[in-house]
Amino acid sequence: MTDTIERPGFVERNRPGRAKMKAAIFVEKNRIVLDEKPIPDVGPLDALIRITTTTICGTDVHILKGEYPVEKGLTIGHEPVGIIEKLGSAVEGFAEGQRVIAGAITPSGYSNACLCGCASQDGPRMKHGFKPMGGWRFGNTIDGAQAEYLVVPDAMTNLAPVPEALADEQVLMCPDIMSTGFAGAESGKVRIGDTVAVFAQGPIGLCATAGARLMGATRIIAVDRVGERLNVARAMGADEVVDFSKVDPVEEILRLTDGRGVDVAIEALGRQETFEAALRVLRPGGTLSSLGVYSSDLKIPLDAFAAGLGDNRIVTSLCPGGKERMRRLMDVVASGRVDARALVTHRFRLDDIEKAYDLFSHQRDGVLKVAITP
Amino acid sequence: MTDTIERPGFVERNRPGRAKMKAAIFVEKNRIVLDEKPIPDVGPLDALIRITTTTICGTDVHILKGEYPVEKGLTIGHEPVGIIEKLGSAVEGFAEGQRVIAGAITPSGYSNACLCGCASQDGPRMKHGFKPMGGWRFGNTIDGAQAEYLVVPDAMTNLAPVPEALADEQVLMCPDIMSTGFAGAESGKVRIGDTVAVFAQGPIGLCATAGARLMGATRIIAVDRVGERLNVARAMGADEVVDFSKVDPVEEILRLTDGRGVDVAIEALGRQETFEAALRVLRPGGTLSSLGVYSSDLKIPLDAFAAGLGDNRIVTSLCPGGKERMRRLMDVVASGRVDARALVTHRFRLDDIEKAYDLFSHQRDGVLKVAITP
Amino acid sequence: MTDTIERPGFVERNRPGRAKMKAAIFVEKNRIVLDEKPIPDVGPLDALIRITTTTICGTDVHILKGEYPVEKGLTIGHEPVGIIEKLGSAVEGFAEGQRVIAGAITPSGYSNACLCGCASQDGPRMKHGFKPMGGWRFGNTIDGAQAEYLVVPDAMTNLAPVPEALADEQVLMCPDIMSTGFAGAESGKVRIGDTVAVFAQGPIGLCATAGARLMGATRIIAVDRVGERLNVARAMGADEVVDFSKVDPVEEILRLTDGRGVDVAIEALGRQETFEAALRVLRPGGTLSSLGVYSSDLKIPLDAFAAGLGDNRIVTSLCPGGKERMRRLMDVVASGRVDARALVTHRFRLDDIEKAYDLFSHQRDGVLKVAITP
Amino acid sequence: MTDTIERPGFVERNRPGRAKMKAAIFVEKNRIVLDEKPIPDVGPLDALIRITTTTICGTDVHILKGEYPVEKGLTIGHEPVGIIEKLGSAVEGFAEGQRVIAGAITPSGYSNACLCGCASQDGPRMKHGFKPMGGWRFGNTIDGAQAEYLVVPDAMTNLAPVPEALADEQVLMCPDIMSTGFAGAESGKVRIGDTVAVFAQGPIGLCATAGARLMGATRIIAVDRVGERLNVARAMGADEVVDFSKVDPVEEILRLTDGRGVDVAIEALGRQETFEAALRVLRPGGTLSSLGVYSSDLKIPLDAFAAGLGDNRIVTSLCPGGKERMRRLMDVVASGRVDARALVTHRFRLDDIEKAYDLFSHQRDGVLKVAITP
Repeated sequence: MTDTIERPGFVERNRPGRAKMKAAIFVEKNRIVLDEKPIPDVGPLDALIRITTTTICGTDVHILKGEYPVEKGLTIGHEPVGIIEKLGSAVEGFAEGQRVIAGAITPSGYSNACLCGCASQDGPRMKHGFKPMGGWRFGNTIDGAQAEYLVVPDAMTNLAPVPEALADEQVLMCPDIMSTGFAGAESGKVRIGDTVAVFAQGPIGLCATAGARLMGATRIIAVDRVGERLNVARAMGADEVVDFSKVDPVEEILRLTDGRGVDVAIEALGRQETFEAALRVLRPGGTLSSLGVYSSDLKIPLDAFAAGLGDNRIVTSLCPGGKERMRRLMDVVASGRVDARALVTHRFRLDDIEKAYDLFSHQRDGVLKVAITP
Repeated sequence: MTDTIERPGFVERNRPGRAKMKAAIFVEKNRIVLDEKPIPDVGPLDALIRITTTTICGTDVHILKGEYPVEKGLTIGHEPVGIIEKLGSAVEGFAEGQRVIAGAITPSGYSNACLCGCASQDGPRMKHGFKPMGGWRFGNTIDGAQAEYLVVPDAMTNLAPVPEALADEQVLMCPDIMSTGFAGAESGKVRIGDTVAVFAQGPIGLCATAGARLMGATRIIAVDRVGERLNVARAMGADEVVDFSKVDPVEEILRLTDGRGVDVAIEALGRQETFEAALRVLRPGGTLSSLGVYSSDLKIPLDAFAAGLGDNRIVTSLCPGGKERMRRLMDVVASGRVDARALVTHRFRLDDIEKAYDLFSHQRDGVLKVAITP
Repeated sequence: MTDTIERPGFVERNRPGRAKMKAAIFVEKNRIVLDEKPIPDVGPLDALIRITTTTICGTDVHILKGEYPVEKGLTIGHEPVGIIEKLGSAVEGFAEGQRVIAGAITPSGYSNACLCGCASQDGPRMKHGFKPMGGWRFGNTIDGAQAEYLVVPDAMTNLAPVPEALADEQVLMCPDIMSTGFAGAESGKVRIGDTVAVFAQGPIGLCATAGARLMGATRIIAVDRVGERLNVARAMGADEVVDFSKVDPVEEILRLTDGRGVDVAIEALGRQETFEAALRVLRPGGTLSSLGVYSSDLKIPLDAFAAGLGDNRIVTSLCPGGKERMRRLMDVVASGRVDARALVTHRFRLDDIEKAYDLFSHQRDGVLKVAITP
Repeated sequence: MTDTIERPGFVERNRPGRAKMKAAIFVEKNRIVLDEKPIPDVGPLDALIRITTTTICGTDVHILKGEYPVEKGLTIGHEPVGIIEKLGSAVEGFAEGQRVIAGAITPSGYSNACLCGCASQDGPRMKHGFKPMGGWRFGNTIDGAQAEYLVVPDAMTNLAPVPEALADEQVLMCPDIMSTGFAGAESGKVRIGDTVAVFAQGPIGLCATAGARLMGATRIIAVDRVGERLNVARAMGADEVVDFSKVDPVEEILRLTDGRGVDVAIEALGRQETFEAALRVLRPGGTLSSLGVYSSDLKIPLDAFAAGLGDNRIVTSLCPGGKERMRRLMDVVASGRVDARALVTHRFRLDDIEKAYDLFSHQRDGVLKVAITP
């Protein structure tokens, strides 16, 4: 399935005597700082991108808090918009100066996983007791996008030119938020006429709501407890909203569906409560599409699982990447089907990224996503 | 999805003054006895079948032990082979005297569940906190097949004529064991060249092994601890067998696959250990196809679930029923692709069914399945 | 696959001495007249519907012109909205007085075709050299909906209650036009970000355009030559329109897509020109989803077919029926996702149906669909 | 969908002063000759393979006869088994000296087509009126395998190591014949219990028969007129054979299926007669899976197509390539599921390849496939 893809990481690239750039670096638990490191070289299949806009993801906050381990010194971030600065010697079909994005997940294109229809799982071999996070490399196993420059590996697979008419902020959600959110609806195989519940309306949940709408669900029930998020949810396509601080969401969804339950429930938070509620509102034969990054074991209650006899599916999705996916998502934006600009609530210079982390990690001031510009 | 399907149950049919038949009846926990009850009437859509061969299922043992609740007085059993004795007034396309089988699950054909591609989940509406066992009616919500006569509801949907060349015992596994076992491979979407692990080699696990073979898996690893079952597993198509009483099955399967894991893992027991092991041996992007009937909550360990980022699927299947499914399974038998007669290890008269329950529930004498003949 | 489903047709029901009703009857080529025939009886599985609104389909015009053969004396029409007048003795779950629709295609629910996932093909056995039109019965093999009363066969499978909030005209497109049109997008497996071309913007083509939009296509190109239809196409979701009376549609679509072609091309007319054009604009790996009813042999040009090496699919769809399909389509309407009222351009009393046929068959006065009310 | 992939072709590589190798070269219509050309260089993503065994394909005969145009001077052949002689500078994960195969179709891995699930269609952009043969490069747009050495483009995507236990001739059918033949069953979505007809039992048809068997078809009907091929068909998994020189195959298949028709019909010849017969034997809702390379326009008879109302699918497949596909096919061989050695009926040295072409193109002496060894 997967073959070892070992590339020179950030360490080898930090050779002395090189031109320097600013980068947001993980130092230790609760410390991500803006510091300098050399502008990296490109290998034959790579491209060097000058970042024009990037953002911070909830996963980066997990890294900040030490909940998701990365090596010290790593540059964080996996959502790049930028300009091609330099192309590797074997890269064809692109030109320096092109404006591009790259997905958060960067499939190689040539791994067995990619060739088996599982491009997001393009990682090193599974080891007993540990399954690595698939093809997620930026800000995880190699230096990431919260910097002035970024090396994109397997550039021919991953660089997606941005249509001129689209501003950076219009495509900023494509590399991760929109790709992951839509995947929730896609993996759930939403059909015309489906009823869909989406648990949690953070940026990914909001895009899952938009994705369910895009695919033809006719009754979309968005669940959160933050009033403003429920308002955005309506704007993104929800037909009904459920404030779980006021009502039991399982009871309310069963009431709304006259006891029938939903065809697809999308989990977009990563907690036992939402996972379990998503399972409980499923109709027999329904699908739980899970997007959350969990941080502890999950429990499947026997009754919610119909003792294993409910013809149910639980599916998980890692953000689909690659240039074709990015092309399609930018088409969604360009066609006006979804306007994800509403998700960008705050803007910072890269120089102020530590303030941005402070705001974002404490979820202050109604923040959904921040735009960071070097 | 599902609409209420309420039919006259066993109580109404037990009117006095009717001709009597023998039936295996649930009396109370640990007591299923052979007793008499009236031969039932048929409603307009029903058929009355004179049973010629039936069998006992592991689920019946759950009922016997009080682990799965049914009403007192219910006739047990859901695996009928027999002769049409009488057809309801609205039934067309069949003739009295035809030899038929009916699936363990009897979809109506006309419910929203059936029309939505989910025919096994053809039950009453979901109630909060309780999901009924879908379309399973025989020996669950209506009288079952361990009797001299059986009423088959929605006969036009459920009666499947048996080809003359096939003996009763050749098709006895079709109603449940083979349909469920194959569903494990089908729901797992086994492809040509897949590696598949099947956890537990009881009758259903053995048919899951045969199903994986039928669908083109090229490396099938059967797991059990009973040597004889592992031998039958080889005969049914396993390429390798793992005796989990001697080795850790997760370690062994990862060793056998060179750390790669399996494309599809089929759980055919219904226990936390097998569920968890099945999850642990999956490759990134792999599918856990669950057939077991669980009797307690399940735990999904965080690492085995790749924190929700592994592009994995957990799918459950309830035995597919209906005459077209039965027709196809009998074709599998008639074509010689799978010979399930090896599963019938013991034979009893209906008069001795209490002995059969004793043997089967204690899994004595290497029993796999028993044939019961009235 | 299919088993013989023979039901008493219109002939047997026309017994003397019965109360009479008005019905649009096929007399001979170019003559459909309003006449009287007895109000039919119901069999045990049937329901008698008092029609409140119905319409005329392009297929009915084929019948009128003698291009599609039906028996003389047959009542035409397959798009009913009405009130349950009487239920067959074996029908449960419905009540007289309920307002309902039934799909143009009326699957039995219990045929092998239905149980094999192919419910629209629920017809008599294939005969050599003749494949019957599947499960299409209304106005084809049994009396149809352009009458005061209609017998719906297999009522439990086919009756779909209409939500109170929806007017007859809002659901009038569900039985055929919307079900068929959406099927064009569904069978084409339209995905988020797809480019889709829809050839011909009659009522079905317009609903195919709406269906492509519902499923997430981001660039929908509608082709017709009638300006008003292209305007309606934009309202139904088209991003671009191509007037084939002014430009070559193949060249124009390839120009619009920068030579790339479309992911899915939907044929909604039933002619060689549109079939061939649809094939020519496909990208390698693309799908031609055909909805048209053809009246002569088709040619597949070698180059347009990439000599058989293009990984292409040509799929045909017959209008999906059954109550669950109707429920979902009415949800599409109720949710405001698609408003098909724009398709009803003219209204007639049943008494004036001959005038309606005259207008509709000559496509005068910009007619799209007519509403007929008894 | 597709982006331009232009690689240095055979012309640039034929620079003077290089070491020479023998190669089968297309000179003009009806002339393929063994001649010398320089051993080619490798680009950064390429690998140079020393061929140990190769073969001649029916498509090569089309080239020979001038029916399929290639440039003069091109080396023919697309089915390589060999040893890695030299790796491009950017190629990782392989070692010189490894024994490998590469598929007939060599996807790049990084094209939009590849990333869209359509890896075989990885060609230059579609031009109006001409669709290139997708990702087929060997012996079509770049030098092929009937030579002492072969350059494999995008080596990381295409090189598949051969297990030590397998002899060259055991894996010789994997690059094209087996991959294409199995694709006929896969694209037809053969299911457990299906009835499948395979039209023509040349090497690809025989592998389609084997593929239908591998996927669980329970009644496989093989059609040909050569007795020996029908015998091999039985060995590859056919349940019944039809000699179309003796009976009308459509009538016979309808007779064998009791008028029901087949679920899937696989066309493996590329002629109107077989295409049409395949269409005529389909059940309503059935799939025609086409593998043939056609050389003229096709006709779809109206009745055989049910006027477009039969819920049918016509699907075409180009040989799937890439190292993961090859790995899976070699697993099929290694597991003993299919033994394709029976297809190799004759053996020649590369020096005698002109004799091999003579035998093969005239289909003399019961030839199925020839093995060519440099």
